[in-house]
Amino acid sequence: MLPRSTTNGVANGQSRRKPEGLREEALDLRRRFGGVLEISSKIPIKDHHILNVLYVPPAALAPAAEIYRNPMSVFELTVKDNVVAIVTDGTAVLGLGDIGAEAALPVMEGKAVLFHTLAGVEAFPICIAERDPEKLVDIVAAISPSFGGINLEDISAPRCFEIEQRLKARLKLPVFHDDQHGTAVVVLSALLNALRLRGTAIESVQIVVNGAGAAGIAVSKLLLSSGVGDIIMCDRLGIISRNRTTGMNQPKREMAQVTNKENVDGTLHDAMVGADVFVGVSGAGAVTPDDIRVMNANPIIFALANPNPEIEPGLAHESGALVVATGRSDYPNQVNNSLAFPGIFRGALDVKALDINDAMKVAAAHAIADLVSDDELGPDYVMPAALDLRVPPAVAAAVARAAIETGVARTLLDPADVAQRTHDRIYTGKLAI
Amino acid sequence: MLPRSTTNGVANGQSRRKPEGLREEALDLRRRFGGVLEISSKIPIKDHHILNVLYVPPAALAPAAEIYRNPMSVFELTVKDNVVAIVTDGTAVLGLGDIGAEAALPVMEGKAVLFHTLAGVEAFPICIAERDPEKLVDIVAAISPSFGGINLEDISAPRCFEIEQRLKARLKLPVFHDDQHGTAVVVLSALLNALRLRGTAIESVQIVVNGAGAAGIAVSKLLLSSGVGDIIMCDRLGIISRNRTTGMNQPKREMAQVTNKENVDGTLHDAMVGADVFVGVSGAGAVTPDDIRVMNANPIIFALANPNPEIEPGLAHESGALVVATGRSDYPNQVNNSLAFPGIFRGALDVKALDINDAMKVAAAHAIADLVSDDELGPDYVMPAALDLRVPPAVAAAVARAAIETGVARTLLDPADVAQRTHDRIYTGKLAI
Repeated sequence: MLPRSTTNGVANGQSRRKPEGLREEALDLRRRFGGVLEISSKIPIKDHHILNVLYVPPAALAPAAEIYRNPMSVFELTVKDNVVAIVTDGTAVLGLGDIGAEAALPVMEGKAVLFHTLAGVEAFPICIAERDPEKLVDIVAAISPSFGGINLEDISAPRCFEIEQRLKARLKLPVFHDDQHGTAVVVLSALLNALRLRGTAIESVQIVVNGAGAAGIAVSKLLLSSGVGDIIMCDRLGIISRNRTTGMNQPKREMAQVTNKENVDGTLHDAMVGADVFVGVSGAGAVTPDDIRVMNANPIIFALANPNPEIEPGLAHESGALVVATGRSDYPNQVNNSLAFPGIFRGALDVKALDINDAMKVAAAHAIADLVSDDELGPDYVMPAALDLRVPPAVAAAVARAAIETGVARTLLDPADVAQRTHDRIYTGKLAI
Repeated sequence: MLPRSTTNGVANGQSRRKPEGLREEALDLRRRFGGVLEISSKIPIKDHHILNVLYVPPAALAPAAEIYRNPMSVFELTVKDNVVAIVTDGTAVLGLGDIGAEAALPVMEGKAVLFHTLAGVEAFPICIAERDPEKLVDIVAAISPSFGGINLEDISAPRCFEIEQRLKARLKLPVFHDDQHGTAVVVLSALLNALRLRGTAIESVQIVVNGAGAAGIAVSKLLLSSGVGDIIMCDRLGIISRNRTTGMNQPKREMAQVTNKENVDGTLHDAMVGADVFVGVSGAGAVTPDDIRVMNANPIIFALANPNPEIEPGLAHESGALVVATGRSDYPNQVNNSLAFPGIFRGALDVKALDINDAMKVAAAHAIADLVSDDELGPDYVMPAALDLRVPPAVAAAVARAAIETGVARTLLDPADVAQRTHDRIYTGKLAI
């Protein structure tokens, strides 16, 4: 694919100015190429024969008639089985906030490129100019016939919880809010390896989660379902308890019922006393060295605020941290959703899963963690790198297996085949005959 | 792109069975390739540098921030400016009727391939499981931020009229119901050349349009706006007049006000007496030799019912017809929408048109007709062939010019450049630098 601009000077023999810095390069690339996604024909029309086969009745109608007779054949005869809608309303775009549906489009295109590059999933951005949760659900349900799965993205909390729950109940397709569950899966995988390094059983671990938005709540739920000892959630006002009445909402009240076993109140600093693990999905500088010093020995610090973490990794280590993970690629142990969502959807699509359930998410987390061997495991390496291409096949296979075991798969495939097919798609962009 | 199936026997050295007939080939191709559309990355992620540019904040957010500041830049920085939604509810799929949203998907995929092959327009099928016109309009409007244009397809009449009108009023994007206007444009282009051959001025011509659905009404409206003498519309119950009360609906009542100047009643046969042109968008066998014999000398017969025309071309010629056109590729003079919609959207997208108005449609019809020279023009050649690749550049240029002249273009391009760019896209699939 060559750039589309005809007016950038290259045609006149001038050399193109090198963009200065990553932001300029991002704008320059997207401007010259007209976005980063491409829709094309697998079977271009070359003559009247193929025109008649693909478009002119009666032959071209045979696939539609077949799907009308046998609805499940839509997965065999169309792109549906490999196409995911990346759905956003643009209300909570990472780092930018509520910028609206249209401005969110380049972010969703980037996400689609990750889906394609890392797992051969074809994804298309659906940016929706509608804020009402009920109407949003109706819209996504109405357009779902074209899609094999729904990835919700950058939708503000607490609306995102209701929207996802309703869609999961309504659609027989994988529905997955990546800001919640992608983050939760990767945090769990990092935690599994950090605890392996520290020699701590997950059942005994005391965790503080700072931030009670989409990511904080989903992380806490997945950690609880993985059997962690206890979690204390905090937000800007401090510890979330069953006593608290200010700054609460329905999701926080629900979390207060299942976390904070001793129902303590206080500040984030109070919560940190005696904790083993800190997970920050909050803001830059939310954690101080003093907060870390009151934790148990060799604490695990996941400072995931982006682009600036809750505490700089160097400072966290100086304050006693054994393992530090961030959301950044320029520090060790990057917690990056792209380790999870491509393989999760790949596995779910391959077995035509009706859902992406907790068992599938936990399986994905273990698959990611298991790629780090005992020999490799260390404070600066609890996570595979974001572009470690061993990850998506392993995740897809584990997710497919869990889908089959929990009865949500509509096609039974050998997980080893799922891994091999994912491998083929990653390296060739397609499945070979 | 290789087929995706791993189980068709080829891998084992067996030769694949040749599909018998076009229908079998249509099913076989779609099954092996998993549909006919493909979504891919223009800029695949090869390392952490491009990952950081395209997906990781802060650089990856620069395009979104830019669009938030300057909304029109969405056309420069994303795929929006070249992507058309092919929207259907599956209520009126040609030849199959009301088969629903999901079964319509392969037909919409085929349409997308035509868009891409004939004009480099990237199109994506949006099959909507919603029947209420008002809700359908809300859904399409809500998802419009991802798209540069809306092609409505296979939506039943009379709902299609209301849906299109509301969307045109609401969106600052080209909205075009192809079953109406694509057909109307190609019929007008065929009529212009048939009248040129017959030596008849359009202002004096008497036309019978049989069929008062989406196509019949749109054809009649466009012919009226092109200045034809008079039209008598008929449906299954006969002539539509201002007297008639049975079998009427709002669109038919509106057409009765502007057609049938002498307000006659009667059968289709009555309407044919003294007519110069018959346009059938009705059903097989609707016209008899006797109907043609009562028309004026050297009548023009467009028998567009598909797959079986209102009268077989041979029989129409025996009955006195000068020119016969059908919807079929195996007869001369195929009236095929693919002559119109790819170039129309190409021209509209290139100038960022706010609408596709009548002037743009009429310009498209003239551009198609003008490709047949006086030397070539004859009873068996009033239309370029469906795959004549001179057509889309000529149509796109004419549509862009008309958009500029009528003030609906947001980008002023030289129509000759639009033609050249369309040519480049057709032959290379992209715009060269």
